Amino acid sequence: MKIVCEKENLMKAINSVIKGVASKTTMPILECILIQTNDDNIKLTTYDLEIGIEYITKCNVIQQGSTVVNAIMFCEIIKKLPDTEINITLNDKNLLVIECEGSLYKLATMNPNEFPELPKINIENSIDLEQKTLKEMIRKTIFAVSIEENRPIFTGCLFEINENKLNVVAVDGFRLGWKKNFLDKSVNSFSAVIPGKTLNEVNKIISDTFDNIKIGVSKNQALFEMENCKIVTRLLDGEFLNYNNVIPDTWETRIKVNKKELQECFERISLISSSAIEKEKKYPVKLNIDIGKLTISCTNQTGDAKEEIFVETEGKNLEAGFNPRYFLDALKVIDDEEIYIDFGSSISPSVIRPIDGDDYKYMILPIRIKE
Amino acid sequence: MKIVCEKENLMKAINSVIKGVASKTTMPILECILIQTNDDNIKLTTYDLEIGIEYITKCNVIQQGSTVVNAIMFCEIIKKLPDTEINITLNDKNLLVIECEGSLYKLATMNPNEFPELPKINIENSIDLEQKTLKEMIRKTIFAVSIEENRPIFTGCLFEINENKLNVVAVDGFRLGWKKNFLDKSVNSFSAVIPGKTLNEVNKIISDTFDNIKIGVSKNQALFEMENCKIVTRLLDGEFLNYNNVIPDTWETRIKVNKKELQECFERISLISSSAIEKEKKYPVKLNIDIGKLTISCTNQTGDAKEEIFVETEGKNLEAGFNPRYFLDALKVIDDEEIYIDFGSSISPSVIRPIDGDDYKYMILPIRIKE
Repeated sequence: MKIVCEKENLMKAINSVIKGVASKTTMPILECILIQTNDDNIKLTTYDLEIGIEYITKCNVIQQGSTVVNAIMFCEIIKKLPDTEINITLNDKNLLVIECEGSLYKLATMNPNEFPELPKINIENSIDLEQKTLKEMIRKTIFAVSIEENRPIFTGCLFEINENKLNVVAVDGFRLGWKKNFLDKSVNSFSAVIPGKTLNEVNKIISDTFDNIKIGVSKNQALFEMENCKIVTRLLDGEFLNYNNVIPDTWETRIKVNKKELQECFERISLISSSAIEKEKKYPVKLNIDIGKLTISCTNQTGDAKEEIFVETEGKNLEAGFNPRYFLDALKVIDDEEIYIDFGSSISPSVIRPIDGDDYKYMILPIRIKE
Repeated sequence: MKIVCEKENLMKAINSVIKGVASKTTMPILECILIQTNDDNIKLTTYDLEIGIEYITKCNVIQQGSTVVNAIMFCEIIKKLPDTEINITLNDKNLLVIECEGSLYKLATMNPNEFPELPKINIENSIDLEQKTLKEMIRKTIFAVSIEENRPIFTGCLFEINENKLNVVAVDGFRLGWKKNFLDKSVNSFSAVIPGKTLNEVNKIISDTFDNIKIGVSKNQALFEMENCKIVTRLLDGEFLNYNNVIPDTWETRIKVNKKELQECFERISLISSSAIEKEKKYPVKLNIDIGKLTISCTNQTGDAKEEIFVETEGKNLEAGFNPRYFLDALKVIDDEEIYIDFGSSISPSVIRPIDGDDYKYMILPIRIKE
């Protein structure tokens, strides 16, 4: 194998595939990048047995071939070389020789035949999205994904395509995040639960542009396909929550509130409610709604805290306890200036909704307050 | 105690003193800030029994008094309040009440009489410097301070005032950093060894401006004094290295080299010489100097690396082994475009010097290379 690459192109390719490199593994080959030439381009592949990433980039192929090299070492050396053409050759001792101006590096390689093959995906259903749309849908739901491994299905986001809408839903038993997007063209209805870990990596690789991304699913796998880059991942197996049935549609108490002001109140009060001294215990904050006013308060060994904020109120007065972090997580990803928050009784879930439309819903379960 | 402060002033004061708060301690009061009113200002004090910091800031004092409050909690709450006036009151239950618009926080306090007193310093000698000069002198030497506690004197920087020059010197047994600065006015000769930890904190507090800072020393203590802020620290006790006698003045081999190019070579080659796989062992790199050319190379299990760089050479050819990190640390803080590096034999120290003058010297001991 002998190739000549522009550093910039090669770095872009490495940065895309490096997210698929295993970090803690007993199989050293999973810490590597597979490099394969193909006429006038090279394909880089990484695969940690959960997520596999392929990236194709143009380069001058002088002699065809393939090899496997440690990803971190290869990445760091290329990154630190000057911004110019880099000569990469597999020599007769199976060392990968990297030459650039006065620099000469020789890295140990592994046998490309031993690199695990990415799963072949038989796409049954697919949708096309702009990358920035997918990025936003991931950002607005992924924080609600469960980190508890005892219910694996909830460690992923539901992607549900139904009546030409894409619904992305995450839930962890204490709160639920739901974001909706209309699709441009008519597609079959289907659904798949994609691991949160994969979506985090996909989110880092896709760009905040109108460039297209295709999401295809087979029975057990999903494929994210961009111009030069493919990401494959397994799907989570099991029955996801029937989310439509659990989000309340009615309310007893509704407030209309400035999102930024409310977020700042929760950020401050979280300092007390989750203070270092008390970090082992979960102290809820108390929400009191009276005409025109929301009061958030909490008391513990660190001190007392009270936040008052003017809001528009409808319906009954209310007192209920909540984990402020769940409100904060949702408020952080909402871009609207004002929002509705709906409450039932003090033991019913609370729902954050947009003032207009129903683009998103965040449901948060209450915590019983000790008196 | 009752005061009204502008958030901005208060935050500046807190950010300055917070570096003196103890992080790991069995004495909770050392994690606190002492707040004392004084006519139309307040003084904040922190003291971890090594470094003590005082900061005075203007504020509206409605009722005189003093209190002690957890530093992190106080800092975080003030930081997150709106940019406006903040009311702070010590109430009759000894809670510190912080009020700002709709926010009300009450924090537990401790008895100010129990806060340890900062050492009184009887200044015997002092110098005045611009803060940016001190910042530069710290930055250019502190990396060479020893982190080994078995020779405590080398965990600090020598500040030596001699013939109206300030010399700052750090040494760790493998390399030495030395930076010189002429003083504006005539002062007594004296010297003191200031703990590296203190200098790191001083460096964070002082600004990159021409504002003045006075460094005063007594027998066992040093005082850094700025307009609103004082920092006291203990001095290290013992005999510092007689650095003048150990830095060679002559050379057998001299190179004149572009600093940035050389730094980039060392950065790349360090990837191999200190690669993850080999991280337990110290692999030196080999420097070869031949007419007009410096070659840096190393070989280990990860791979081979060779860097060639064009340099101006004088004197003999040379082959010697070095830890590339020691070169990198020095090169990173040098601002000159070109430098001299002088060598004796392959077992003599190497010295980095400026092309003009003798503002700084970095001495690096060689490592014997296994053949």
